[in-house]
Amino acid sequence: MRLDSSAAGVYPIAPTPFHPDGSIDEASIDRLIDAYIAAGATGVTVLGIMGEAPKLEPEESLAVATRFIKGMGKLPVIVGVSSPGFAAMRKLARHSMDRGAAGVMIAPLPSLRTDEQIIGYYRQAVEAIGPDIPFVIQDYPLTLSVQMTPKVIRHIVQENASCMMLKHEDWPGLEKISALRGFQRDGSMRPISILTGNGGLFLDFEMERGADGAMTGYAFPEMLADVVRLQKAGRRDEAHDLFDAHLPLLRYEQQQGVGLAVRKYVLMQRGLLASDAQRKPGAALSAAARSEVDYLLSRLAARDSRALVRRSSAAE
Amino acid sequence: MRLDSSAAGVYPIAPTPFHPDGSIDEASIDRLIDAYIAAGATGVTVLGIMGEAPKLEPEESLAVATRFIKGMGKLPVIVGVSSPGFAAMRKLARHSMDRGAAGVMIAPLPSLRTDEQIIGYYRQAVEAIGPDIPFVIQDYPLTLSVQMTPKVIRHIVQENASCMMLKHEDWPGLEKISALRGFQRDGSMRPISILTGNGGLFLDFEMERGADGAMTGYAFPEMLADVVRLQKAGRRDEAHDLFDAHLPLLRYEQQQGVGLAVRKYVLMQRGLLASDAQRKPGAALSAAARSEVDYLLSRLAARDSRALVRRSSAAE
Amino acid sequence: MRLDSSAAGVYPIAPTPFHPDGSIDEASIDRLIDAYIAAGATGVTVLGIMGEAPKLEPEESLAVATRFIKGMGKLPVIVGVSSPGFAAMRKLARHSMDRGAAGVMIAPLPSLRTDEQIIGYYRQAVEAIGPDIPFVIQDYPLTLSVQMTPKVIRHIVQENASCMMLKHEDWPGLEKISALRGFQRDGSMRPISILTGNGGLFLDFEMERGADGAMTGYAFPEMLADVVRLQKAGRRDEAHDLFDAHLPLLRYEQQQGVGLAVRKYVLMQRGLLASDAQRKPGAALSAAARSEVDYLLSRLAARDSRALVRRSSAAE
Amino acid sequence: MRLDSSAAGVYPIAPTPFHPDGSIDEASIDRLIDAYIAAGATGVTVLGIMGEAPKLEPEESLAVATRFIKGMGKLPVIVGVSSPGFAAMRKLARHSMDRGAAGVMIAPLPSLRTDEQIIGYYRQAVEAIGPDIPFVIQDYPLTLSVQMTPKVIRHIVQENASCMMLKHEDWPGLEKISALRGFQRDGSMRPISILTGNGGLFLDFEMERGADGAMTGYAFPEMLADVVRLQKAGRRDEAHDLFDAHLPLLRYEQQQGVGLAVRKYVLMQRGLLASDAQRKPGAALSAAARSEVDYLLSRLAARDSRALVRRSSAAE
Repeated sequence: MRLDSSAAGVYPIAPTPFHPDGSIDEASIDRLIDAYIAAGATGVTVLGIMGEAPKLEPEESLAVATRFIKGMGKLPVIVGVSSPGFAAMRKLARHSMDRGAAGVMIAPLPSLRTDEQIIGYYRQAVEAIGPDIPFVIQDYPLTLSVQMTPKVIRHIVQENASCMMLKHEDWPGLEKISALRGFQRDGSMRPISILTGNGGLFLDFEMERGADGAMTGYAFPEMLADVVRLQKAGRRDEAHDLFDAHLPLLRYEQQQGVGLAVRKYVLMQRGLLASDAQRKPGAALSAAARSEVDYLLSRLAARDSRALVRRSSAAE
Repeated sequence: MRLDSSAAGVYPIAPTPFHPDGSIDEASIDRLIDAYIAAGATGVTVLGIMGEAPKLEPEESLAVATRFIKGMGKLPVIVGVSSPGFAAMRKLARHSMDRGAAGVMIAPLPSLRTDEQIIGYYRQAVEAIGPDIPFVIQDYPLTLSVQMTPKVIRHIVQENASCMMLKHEDWPGLEKISALRGFQRDGSMRPISILTGNGGLFLDFEMERGADGAMTGYAFPEMLADVVRLQKAGRRDEAHDLFDAHLPLLRYEQQQGVGLAVRKYVLMQRGLLASDAQRKPGAALSAAARSEVDYLLSRLAARDSRALVRRSSAAE
Repeated sequence: MRLDSSAAGVYPIAPTPFHPDGSIDEASIDRLIDAYIAAGATGVTVLGIMGEAPKLEPEESLAVATRFIKGMGKLPVIVGVSSPGFAAMRKLARHSMDRGAAGVMIAPLPSLRTDEQIIGYYRQAVEAIGPDIPFVIQDYPLTLSVQMTPKVIRHIVQENASCMMLKHEDWPGLEKISALRGFQRDGSMRPISILTGNGGLFLDFEMERGADGAMTGYAFPEMLADVVRLQKAGRRDEAHDLFDAHLPLLRYEQQQGVGLAVRKYVLMQRGLLASDAQRKPGAALSAAARSEVDYLLSRLAARDSRALVRRSSAAE
Repeated sequence: MRLDSSAAGVYPIAPTPFHPDGSIDEASIDRLIDAYIAAGATGVTVLGIMGEAPKLEPEESLAVATRFIKGMGKLPVIVGVSSPGFAAMRKLARHSMDRGAAGVMIAPLPSLRTDEQIIGYYRQAVEAIGPDIPFVIQDYPLTLSVQMTPKVIRHIVQENASCMMLKHEDWPGLEKISALRGFQRDGSMRPISILTGNGGLFLDFEMERGADGAMTGYAFPEMLADVVRLQKAGRRDEAHDLFDAHLPLLRYEQQQGVGLAVRKYVLMQRGLLASDAQRKPGAALSAAARSEVDYLLSRLAARDSRALVRRSSAAE
């Protein structure tokens, strides 16, 4: 159950469910777990950016991770441990592993600029958490403002044997997947798992470029799982047909800042979250936006019946 | 033919066509003009970011603008005059107006941060070009890293009588349109035209929020024109059906940096540009990317026959 | 002992002393306290950026704050509570006040851009910590990349009765002090305390523009205290003479990133810190840099005998 | 007279003098030239950031460069040719060389982030201007937000035989000089000239780390020339004594944004510029700031009689 470089499929990025008063909603965690397993997830990632990780206290972070680990059973759980300080990173990483996590995910500090700074940061991070914990590089320039070239990623992979996966969410990012797979072919980089993020906005082609699957928070992980499966089976047109049906909603979710509010709202409409509350500071959804999402859901349901939502949109 | 606040419809953002040797391709300009008019464009915007404006010499900029002005006949041409210095901005603005431009478009300097800095910049820009030239605010935070709130836009509009239009390409941006139209309703801002950009990625809903149309470079302006027309006629579902058919390609075009290469390639495949060459520094399209675009075009053609491309994709 | 808007004098920004193994060095905290009091400090600020606050665990933060509070006796202690999440901010703020802190300092999130975002953030922060806790605005664009105009600061001050002080470290920043004092004179803003940061690089003139004192980490707080005192006594030339004597070292300390290493080294040379260790990630000082600092110290000692360091520079 | 890697001494960065109406003031150019030669300058650099280069029309840029080239006689003139487009860069570079320039200076585009992007940009720039034109790398992260590591600089130097000099203005930057000189010692980089900028704020130690001189706009180039000369003669204490006398003013000049206004004001007070006018957009100096500069000048004059200004400060 430790993460290795053969990881594939769909690892949903889990939101952290809150009650309207800001306390953690454990029952919704359990419903999310059931839904992820039913959707065909091969793992789950918790305490990412979408999980509002910086808004949690250390003990809350560990409690959320632990609940997911127990609930997912034999499926691997990756715990986001990104932190401005290595002491906190180490503590959450080691405690999560003690409780059964499969690995951890580490985003670079937003202030890093040069190749050397980025490489040096991962070196120090591995030193901090220990070389025995499998880890995932999070490459998300749009939000983190850190740009890693394929060569930098290769350097990190080759230098740190415990690096097992790239969470790829550069944008544009298709050529990056091709470049990394090229490094594997020419023998200059050992194989790693590449799961893609960015809300899935290019998942259709990312699979064709060589991704192993998806790690993102789109509110219908069953679609992500199907597209991954269809592409691996060589059923290209079917994969694109399904993807295209979801693209209008997926594109709506993939908005900086407000995206999490959209996702929590859809997950609430699907009956998985009891509330779409975020801890402050957080973006809220206007009535107009909620109505737009409802419209997108109704249009999607005409093409994918799984999008028929349980609740009426009068819930607001 | 001077731009005023009633402007509506579709103003394609024109690329600047180059020959492979970097010289300007005037025949392709003429073909673009014909295509825009045939597609139902109500105007055109030249020398924007997509027009590679900073890579042109002053005399080239004026020549490109002049050719478009002549070719578009009675349809208005907006000329991008953004510049690090007000002397160059003034010169291009006044010379373009002398040659028949309808107005100019001004982006803020990327270094501007505070509300006061942004407002002050537009005040100085109007002082520089003169208060008699109708102008468009370009609001494009993703590329320019300048964030204008609705109140800042209102301030600029109220302070400068020659401000006629907002080129809206904030992301996310739907609430901004609603806020600005709310200012008009409560009487705190005079009416302005709002045309939306961002590749059209949210045009479906932008029209519902109150936009007057689109000003963007998507390679099928006929789709933009139809969606605008259908939404204005209240034919919501039809508008979304057509939009959704184009969304997979549109999303592919709307990639930072490489997007212009995709657009020029599609316009070349459509027979409008003789070459997809960019002046340096510019992004190139890999063989894999060209093949992905070809695939998207073929899928699109099955739903919108206008996407049947003239040339074979063997052209590469 | 609660912070109010009459605060003045010198509040050194305290570093957090670490042993070489990364644990907190309490004995050095006690020596710092004694030195600050002897130097004429009128208060102290802990857990700022210079205090490596993001690298501490919550319980460590509170322990450091508590030790300073006890040690400073009747002198006020301001606790930095900046955090990506309001839950953690509230917890540290309230616990620190319970233990006797005089107030808290809040820096804006680095992602804030527009005036409204900044104002809204402080509104939410006050909501989170409660309106009964006196707070300080930290205005440090060079490091935080958030730019607050004088009007934005005025808005925050007028909206939040618990705002007592501005830690001013904009650069350039002299006109900002004049603008804010102008707001007080014209009655549009209630009086607040302004203590200046930026390593003291402009303290000589900041006092003349209307600052109440300094809040910064320069390793010779006695100089800061003297300059503040001399300027308040109208002894301008003497203030500048003393300031100029320290400027070569002060300038050397005021380097982004490596500055903290310089300060910890000087404080170690002065016998106040047992070690100049930082928690990772942190910048280290090269042998050449240490030798340059030693040279600056020796030159300074010729003009201000307080700069005669206790230890030999052979310590390295 | 072509620039080569043995360049040393002081190359003042020349401001572009304007009349209050914004036209170029040629008589002041001539006075600057005389003053630079008298101050011991070994060359001059025109059309840099401080020269307000982006605010000039192409023909104006060439005219300013040409006047400096003629006036400096046998002393080398470096022309800043940084531009968003390579066409304009090539044109100004080649025309300037035709008129007798010694070389050109190229700053990276502010959007560049990764090592590869920076290296690729210089490769393309050399391709654009031609491999026969000696060029200078401008490394100024604070303003350009591009961070070049020593290894990146080495790569550019090794790849482009026409690279002759680094204008070093990283901050902090002392270790960078040491690292580059280390590359020369270990044979991994051919020797280049390193002249330092940043207003001279660390010139005292930069010379000790291995710089060949200064290229910056401090309004007393005679001090820069003396410090360079004294350090080369091994007269360390004297160099620091002179430097320290100027540091209060130098620090005041070295403020982002407003710094150019300070410099033009001092140069006007010295009788070299007829006006301190800048083209818009530009920062202006308040009455309080002018009075502070006058005070600094009077204090400086007590230690360095060359700072006795010709004009009365009542000139405002």
